[in-house]
Parts: sequence; C-alpha cells; structure tokens
Amino acid sequence: MTNLDEDAFGAEPWLRIGAHEFHSRLLLGVEQYDDPALVGRVLEGSGADVFITTFDLERSRNSLLLSDLAREIDLDRFTWIGTTSFSHTSADAVTTARYLRSAFGIDVIKLDVRDASNLPDAGATVMAAKELLAEGFSLLPFILPEVQTARTLVDLGCSALRLMAAPVASYRGLVEPNRLRACIEAVEVPTVVEGGLGSPADVIRAFELGAEAVLVNTLVARAPDPVRMARAVRHALLAGGFGRP
Amino acid sequence: MTNLDEDAFGAEPWLRIGAHEFHSRLLLGVEQYDDPALVGRVLEGSGADVFITTFDLERSRNSLLLSDLAREIDLDRFTWIGTTSFSHTSADAVTTARYLRSAFGIDVIKLDVRDASNLPDAGATVMAAKELLAEGFSLLPFILPEVQTARTLVDLGCSALRLMAAPVASYRGLVEPNRLRACIEAVEVPTVVEGGLGSPADVIRAFELGAEAVLVNTLVARAPDPVRMARAVRHALLAGGFGRP
Repeated sequence: MTNLDEDAFGAEPWLRIGAHEFHSRLLLGVEQYDDPALVGRVLEGSGADVFITTFDLERSRNSLLLSDLAREIDLDRFTWIGTTSFSHTSADAVTTARYLRSAFGIDVIKLDVRDASNLPDAGATVMAAKELLAEGFSLLPFILPEVQTARTLVDLGCSALRLMAAPVASYRGLVEPNRLRACIEAVEVPTVVEGGLGSPADVIRAFELGAEAVLVNTLVARAPDPVRMARAVRHALLAGGFGRP
Repeated sequence: MTNLDEDAFGAEPWLRIGAHEFHSRLLLGVEQYDDPALVGRVLEGSGADVFITTFDLERSRNSLLLSDLAREIDLDRFTWIGTTSFSHTSADAVTTARYLRSAFGIDVIKLDVRDASNLPDAGATVMAAKELLAEGFSLLPFILPEVQTARTLVDLGCSALRLMAAPVASYRGLVEPNRLRACIEAVEVPTVVEGGLGSPADVIRAFELGAEAVLVNTLVARAPDPVRMARAVRHALLAGGFGRP
C-alpha cells in the first residue's frame, strides 16, 4: 500500500514498539462493518497500516469473522493489534488481552476499559495497565484528556496514549482542545486523538494540537460512502502533516 | 498539472465562464510574494489552475513583475483572471478592470471594492458590478455573507460569489458559518469562501457548508513553508471533496 503519510511526516514511523513500526497516522476501527469486502476497500482507501481485532467476551455483538476478512484483505500487510474496547472491567480487559495473545500472538493492546456511560474508566484502565505491562504487553490506553492520568500511565510504561476528543460516536469533535494540548505537552510518548471526531477537519485540528496520530471509527463506518470518507480522512491527515511548521 | 481535484469532485468544472473552465477548487492569491520561483512552487503544490493578476493603480506596493514570473512558471497553463483588490472606490475598480482587459485580454474579474477597514463595500461593489457587466466583463465579486447583497449581485448577472469568512489575513476562520450557509443556499451560482482562513481545517469546513471553491492567500503566503502549506490546502480540499456525501 502506498504510504502517502510519509510524504507529509517524513519517512520515520511515529511509533515503534519492538519490531513493529507504525507509519500511517490513521488508526481505523473496523468492528462496525457487516461486509468484509467493504472493510478491505475502506482500509485501502484510508492508507492505514494497522489492523485492529478483538474478542467479544460476551459474544454480544455480531462481528465479522477473521476468515471472511482474510478472503478480502491481505491481512499480512498490516501490523495486528488487539483492542479491549468491549471491556467494562479491568479483569475483562486483561482476559481479552490474554486471549488475543494466545490466539494471534498479539502483544500490542489498544487498552480500553469503559464505564457505564461508555467513557474511559481511568482507575480500571490503570489497574489493567499495571497487570498487562507486568505480563509483557505493550499498551495504548484510552483516557479522558486528564494530565494526571496521562502521566500515571506513561510512568507505568505505556507506549502511547489515546486521548478522548469527545464521546465515542458523538461527532462532536475536539470539544476541549486546551485539555488535549495540555496532555500532549505533558508526556513524552506519542499521542493519538480519538473519539467523536465528526469531520475530516477535526483530523487536521488534532495534528495542529500536536497529536501524532488519530483513531477514527464511526465517522468512516457510518458515512454514506465509507470508502470516500476514508479517503477524505487520509487527505485530511496529509493536510495536517503538511500544515505543521 | 495533475488535477487531483477531479478525483474528489468529478471531472466537471465547478465554474464555466465562456470558454474558461475552472477545475481546481482552490484559488490562490499570489501578490504577497517577493520571489517568483517561490510563486511557481506554490502554484504547483496547490494544484491551482487560475492565475490572478492585477494593476496597482497607485503603484503603492511592490509587486512581482509578470516578466519575472513568466521565467519561472508556464503561465499559459493557467486561466488568467484579474483582481481589483487594491480598489477602494467603484471607479478605481472599473478602471483597473479596463486596464486588465486592454493589457491582457482579461475578461473575468475578481471584483473587490474595499472600505477603509479593508472590508467589502457592498454598495460600491454593486455599482462597479453594474458598470462592468454592461461592458461585458464576467465577475466574481467579494462580499460579506449577506443574503440580500448576494441576491442583488446574482440578479445583475455575476458568475459566482466570493463570501467573506473573516477579515482578510485575520486567520479567524469561518466565524459565522450560518450566515455563509444562508448565502450559499440563497443563490444558484457557485460560491467561493475566502478571507481569514486560518487552517486547512477551515477549507474542509467551507466545503461542508456547500461552497464550491475556496480562495486562500495569507494562510499560504505567510506560512513558515508556503509550499508545504499549499500542499496542505490541496489535501484539505480533497478531504472536503471526498467528505461530501
């Protein structure tokens, strides 16, 4: 896959974890789709080089089967990471991560523990992080833009932080840019802006605040034409990259 | 010049005036530069297919000589239009347009008449428009986002409208999106959003409001690296195009 991102941000990856290099500045959630061919076209259009998979411990949602996806997409081209975004307790997050490692050898986890309102639960996230880091996982935890939580997770050894722009699927964009900027400036690790991005314009704003990457999900998945929106987001991140001094 | 815009918006021009077809959704002001080679690289990076030139009746500003520009840029590739943006009276605007026609055969005018605060002067603009339209010019007047002024100028026969987002060079972005949208929806001709755009994100917002094009000047000209910013804006307009349903 052509990685246009490198034009904008230089050839260096924005994140290295062990042997994994993350070049694309776009992480794309793909669990909201019914059609594996569409996922393939969306990933292609987006330029993403990471594939995010999970286990739904409660089997409460219909997910695409990996076997179906593998027929549509050359999954080997992607860095595989796991997500615990269906977890509401630290124990569930830890269990999900262990399953992901035993099934797929995944050792990089997009760590999410959500509270009853589907917002990041800082205490439970920190608890799960401690346990998973001790087991050798590398972590990208999702948090509200709180400097103290950010510092705590970085001090524990997390590889990057994912900062919530707005509630997931809210389309509200970067509602508190100053809080995001404060977190970005408070930590040395790369930051990802995620949650509620409502327009490709929000992608540019995230880069202007200093984020190293964005994670987009609903904006693309529920767009009238997800492939077109994936391409829009890709161009927005190039615009964000070129626009940085 | 590769016109990536066509990918995003279809192969149709967004504006046709006589034999002139406007494909690129980006109009770029180039009167703020000292270095003709830089203008060439900026135009190339931006993908713009229109070259905007003028006469400064008062010779009050240093402008690049067309002869210098022609050594750096294949000016034949561009549609030439003229601007009256240095004019503060309708008479000066009319005189400038006539000079542009007699010197260059230009018959498409980016009509600006600015008041003492450098804001569009609606009355003087309408007066100049009447006179120039009677002389056979095609006009793209610059106005505040006022529905009545917009309708008046369209009824007179203007080809497109340029709507002010924020004061020129203010970097304030789309300060009154609802007024912009009201104008865009009130007229049948294509609209251009212009003035004070402060980020490539504002370019996307303009397309989301329904504009057909943007005009960018200071954002690129005074960027730390104008060529990079020109490319950023080009990607932003592609993002805006792909993001439209």
